[in-house]
Amino acid sequence: MIQHTSRLGKGYLTKKESDASDDLNSELFTLTYGALVTQLCKDYENDEEVNKQLDKMGYNIGVRLIEDFLARSSIGRCQDFRETADVIAKVAFKMYLGITPSVTNWSPAGDELSLILESNPLVDFVELPDNHSSLVYSNLLCGVLRGALEMVQMAVDVKFAQDTLRGDNVTEIRMKFIKRMEENLPAGDE
Amino acid sequence: MIQHTSRLGKGYLTKKESDASDDLNSELFTLTYGALVTQLCKDYENDEEVNKQLDKMGYNIGVRLIEDFLARSSIGRCQDFRETADVIAKVAFKMYLGITPSVTNWSPAGDELSLILESNPLVDFVELPDNHSSLVYSNLLCGVLRGALEMVQMAVDVKFAQDTLRGDNVTEIRMKFIKRMEENLPAGDE
Repeated sequence: MIQHTSRLGKGYLTKKESDASDDLNSELFTLTYGALVTQLCKDYENDEEVNKQLDKMGYNIGVRLIEDFLARSSIGRCQDFRETADVIAKVAFKMYLGITPSVTNWSPAGDELSLILESNPLVDFVELPDNHSSLVYSNLLCGVLRGALEMVQMAVDVKFAQDTLRGDNVTEIRMKFIKRMEENLPAGDE
Repeated sequence: MIQHTSRLGKGYLTKKESDASDDLNSELFTLTYGALVTQLCKDYENDEEVNKQLDKMGYNIGVRLIEDFLARSSIGRCQDFRETADVIAKVAFKMYLGITPSVTNWSPAGDELSLILESNPLVDFVELPDNHSSLVYSNLLCGVLRGALEMVQMAVDVKFAQDTLRGDNVTEIRMKFIKRMEENLPAGDE
């Protein structure tokens, strides 16, 4: 259902591609994520429901991933939302997806910003079929951000504003600060 | 359903853990894979069916991943099954999972071997609930190997022989060479 386009046209033994390296490569993750989205498209009736499920799964991942992130990065409490956004873009995205989005389009009040992804490893070689025009393929990421930030007492609203999969030039995640939450609330799955 | 155990006991800001680095980290992949397995456990009636689905998804991933692998690694045709096994362990596992299994337990005929994984990133922080005692949690990997090798004209049988998730000391993937396939068959999904 989700098409993964082919990297190589003909034959196997063509030359090394640009980003070959010894580092952990995200291709297996990319394809596994594709299998997950495909499965959800089989399970749920419409794209909106799939988007919701991806967000929910992401949330549950985020509430767990934050511990790993804080442990690995040794980053302490951020002073403000601006610092939080910088840490997300420069440390977190780099650590888990190998990319560094730019932080931009701040609202005048400083409570809303955009993460601009020049490339998105989740969608490498993916093409959306015509009958899934409402699918927000990478919506898991919004849930991850929401869940992770909730665990450090920040309630945020996160959604895709632009998506290369849908013909936009870049991928843009829009994030809005809602409120600071009380500490020591029990962490619950949704 | 699938439990991801907590890395940190109390509070967030404990010390950096052992393998902290700037490299791409597999934790997001690990948790996303967990979401996929959990979803399949919801969708299918019993563990055997989930195992079968994971193997099938893995197969479809493998037939695509092989192109990426051959392009990145610049590896040509292997001379024999022994060399293939070495490349799988030392190059492919390293590239996509960041681990290097040992290749061992060769059958006298040289057509069967074991890949011993000291650690398996897919199961980090995973505990199987009691009612999933037949679940082969990482079975996707068997399908990936089967699918990828089929694309280079090797039919193999792959299965988990031991699994730390089920109380074994190591994780062991048993791989058996079945036959060399004719070239230029069209690659079909299963």
